[in-house]
Amino acid sequence: MKLQVALDTLTLQDCIALLEETKGSVDIAEVGTPFVIEEGMVPVKEFKKRFPDIEVLADVKIMDAGKYEADKCFDAGADIVTVLGVSHDETIKGVVESAANHHKKVMVDMIAVENLEKRTKEIDQMGVDYICVHTAFDVQSLGQDPLDDLKTVNRVIQNAKSAVAGGVKLQTVDAIVQEGCEIVVVGGAICNAKDRSAYAKEIKEHLK
Amino acid sequence: MKLQVALDTLTLQDCIALLEETKGSVDIAEVGTPFVIEEGMVPVKEFKKRFPDIEVLADVKIMDAGKYEADKCFDAGADIVTVLGVSHDETIKGVVESAANHHKKVMVDMIAVENLEKRTKEIDQMGVDYICVHTAFDVQSLGQDPLDDLKTVNRVIQNAKSAVAGGVKLQTVDAIVQEGCEIVVVGGAICNAKDRSAYAKEIKEHLK
Repeated sequence: MKLQVALDTLTLQDCIALLEETKGSVDIAEVGTPFVIEEGMVPVKEFKKRFPDIEVLADVKIMDAGKYEADKCFDAGADIVTVLGVSHDETIKGVVESAANHHKKVMVDMIAVENLEKRTKEIDQMGVDYICVHTAFDVQSLGQDPLDDLKTVNRVIQNAKSAVAGGVKLQTVDAIVQEGCEIVVVGGAICNAKDRSAYAKEIKEHLK
Repeated sequence: MKLQVALDTLTLQDCIALLEETKGSVDIAEVGTPFVIEEGMVPVKEFKKRFPDIEVLADVKIMDAGKYEADKCFDAGADIVTVLGVSHDETIKGVVESAANHHKKVMVDMIAVENLEKRTKEIDQMGVDYICVHTAFDVQSLGQDPLDDLKTVNRVIQNAKSAVAGGVKLQTVDAIVQEGCEIVVVGGAICNAKDRSAYAKEIKEHLK
């Protein structure tokens, strides 16, 4: 299983420091949505230049103009681009087309999808690489958790691989590992840890 | 009615030139999603500095972390921020809270909302300023058009004002004006016009 670290709330310099500290533990560096809002593709370019061995995911959550927006991210150096599961089929297919042209990958973020089983079956036929269950930050405090959603997705996918995001931490990672998936996304638990290097290393050990 | 020009596909320099050319016709300059993906908040800051009389909308299509992401946009100088109608209620409410703190405004983008009437009624109770019907770029070629959606929204809103986006041009603007709304968003029709100044002026005259 791969460990993806979501970089949402740090400065560019602090993200670079974190990726240095956690080398060997982190497989995918996620340029989080708030980071894109502030800095556009600057962090994507910077991470690719400094960390050629780490995949870079641009969490742009595409909702329209799929091919056009994905092209911009892949041209900037992203290895994986996110598109929303709630978007139109044509948008997801546009992102898939862009990824194929660039020999890169697509992750579909299933945040706020109402009928998860039905939508997963549809998207699984579209040629995407990853389907990511995602408990929104804004509802995590209501006690929601992505594990049940992961079970639903794992039950129906035949082509894509699954990923999981939304409040994952050491206390919850073993249940995810037991259920199985390709990518585990961890954000705040690593970024806000006292010893980020040790925390990332411990999480990664649980994923093996 | 206000004219909002969606700046999606031009360079920053060309956007500035367009806003100079169309002065007096354009009320709101939209920093489009692809533009944010490339440049972050740079265009928002630049437009606010150069065009203090034009409102600036950051089309960030927020899907999560509503308050946090909206804060970033308003802090950069945006007057209006967009959030997706398909996002969780908590996310929309977070954007509304941020807007209230900054004395700024919220537009909800209803792109890909499945039950438009039901969702509009819900969102109309959340304190948002604008509810924008929006035919996605990726489905405009299928012949979809935002006019019917605008009629639906206008029928049910009691608090918010309506806006309309998605392929609007001179040939379709009169039907929208007849139906009525607060903001008409025009993108490609102005940006790709031979004479952008004359085109924007003519559209604006239809809105009066």
